[in-house]
Amino acid sequence: MSKKSPSQFEAVLQPTAEILIVGNELLNGTTLDTNSHWMSQELTALGVKIMRKTTVRDELSVISGTFLECLGRRPDWLFSIGGLGPTYDDMTIEGLAKALGKELYLDPDAVLMLKESYVRRRKMFNQPVRRIPRSSLKMAMIPRESIPLRNSVGSAAGVLAEAKGTRIASFPGVPSEMKAIFTEQVIPLIKKGSAKFVHAEEWLEILGASESRLAPIISRISKKYSPVLYIKSHPMGFENGKSLIHAQIIMTARKENEAESLKLLEQATRDLTRGIKRLAATIKKTRSVR
Amino acid sequence: MSKKSPSQFEAVLQPTAEILIVGNELLNGTTLDTNSHWMSQELTALGVKIMRKTTVRDELSVISGTFLECLGRRPDWLFSIGGLGPTYDDMTIEGLAKALGKELYLDPDAVLMLKESYVRRRKMFNQPVRRIPRSSLKMAMIPRESIPLRNSVGSAAGVLAEAKGTRIASFPGVPSEMKAIFTEQVIPLIKKGSAKFVHAEEWLEILGASESRLAPIISRISKKYSPVLYIKSHPMGFENGKSLIHAQIIMTARKENEAESLKLLEQATRDLTRGIKRLAATIKKTRSVR
Repeated sequence: MSKKSPSQFEAVLQPTAEILIVGNELLNGTTLDTNSHWMSQELTALGVKIMRKTTVRDELSVISGTFLECLGRRPDWLFSIGGLGPTYDDMTIEGLAKALGKELYLDPDAVLMLKESYVRRRKMFNQPVRRIPRSSLKMAMIPRESIPLRNSVGSAAGVLAEAKGTRIASFPGVPSEMKAIFTEQVIPLIKKGSAKFVHAEEWLEILGASESRLAPIISRISKKYSPVLYIKSHPMGFENGKSLIHAQIIMTARKENEAESLKLLEQATRDLTRGIKRLAATIKKTRSVR
Repeated sequence: MSKKSPSQFEAVLQPTAEILIVGNELLNGTTLDTNSHWMSQELTALGVKIMRKTTVRDELSVISGTFLECLGRRPDWLFSIGGLGPTYDDMTIEGLAKALGKELYLDPDAVLMLKESYVRRRKMFNQPVRRIPRSSLKMAMIPRESIPLRNSVGSAAGVLAEAKGTRIASFPGVPSEMKAIFTEQVIPLIKKGSAKFVHAEEWLEILGASESRLAPIISRISKKYSPVLYIKSHPMGFENGKSLIHAQIIMTARKENEAESLKLLEQATRDLTRGIKRLAATIKKTRSVR
């Protein structure tokens, strides 16, 4: 590689994130976790590297303990999903407050947001506006020194906090509400706070070579282009008795190195194609994600 | 409750499990994790309580460190999914060996299983049986004192080990292979090794009461029937301007207490129904999972 090629430095500077998912329903098989999958896709597109996902039960000491574990690994971002509602088993914010060593208080902005969402919903359906149920007010209790994040489609506001250099954002588990808060309130912060990274992928569908035969080729090319590129093979079963593998070449680079990194991506794709053809396998289809 | 009702003791005796998922593709949004969801449903039906799920990247020190963290919490079972293939980034078994402090060795039984699967596949498609690629042999390297688990649909055998009272089972990430090994090899062990637990659920669809209004009722009934029953509300949005909530009453009891626990489940369902009707909400539909 030329001396202008992106260095190891780049992998270090890419912002990192962890996701903490709270809810028994994600652990007992009631609910398939599409929330963190969606968030992972968004973060990857923004150039953020997701280091770990942890799913825990609705237990206060477990939640606060896991917040501390995540913070101890010093990610740039820590996102929590779930447990922000009004019921007895919604205890993520209490767990966060405990982990931060801050008391919970009724935040005036959060109360305003709650009233706003209540009125919006009653009006939308032409219903009389009554008093907010007392049990709703729990959703406006947030840790001192944190900030409520407006929920434009539901009642539970998100919470933004900071600790030990990690920015923490907590989201409700209702998918539409999590997505609205993430998109409207948090994406702008991620874009502003972090260096600009670009993400691109090339996919090859390989027919007629087993993962075992491909392994040495993928390994060699991966090492050659690391850390700018990363290659992963996905075994997809068989087609007419021939092994079908999807190979994914992932590029993550700083914006200012985009052009030369994309050249490396093309170069690696050619290298891989050549290697595959030498195995007498065929490449069925290619696809680019930019 | 009568003095014959199941005690707190029961919650303690229910076998526990953690799931460790390995793979960058689960963290960068490439793959939706349906594997651990499926496994959670199976385990719940078997009466096993899933305490935590952790998803980590394909990095050896992270994998071995996370195995140790999971073992430190002393679950009865620890299941790992992914990273058992032949490629350079498949390193779960090496991570497991490191965590257990055992060396990897070429297990003769695992080699036999590998050959068996290779021959099976070549014959299935009327292809000549050649020599197994050297890179495949990696899949027959397992930690000393562990046992390979036959994979009836693919090549990577599962691995069964034990440490500090926790039984560890590692599965490949290809869904059909994970499911085959789990169903054929591991379910019988779970059934044999653990006290018999039964699981049942009642679902109520509640129209016209917000989660905030339901919260105090659900909280009261949950406390009354804990730990045999556990109630969770799932907000599902709105129908004709009315709030739609799915309430799930989950029963977990020892087999010998099944009859009286089911009575408690019915009793709690009646309690909840009464409470909901008092809010002038309607119950749209009920469904039982047995």
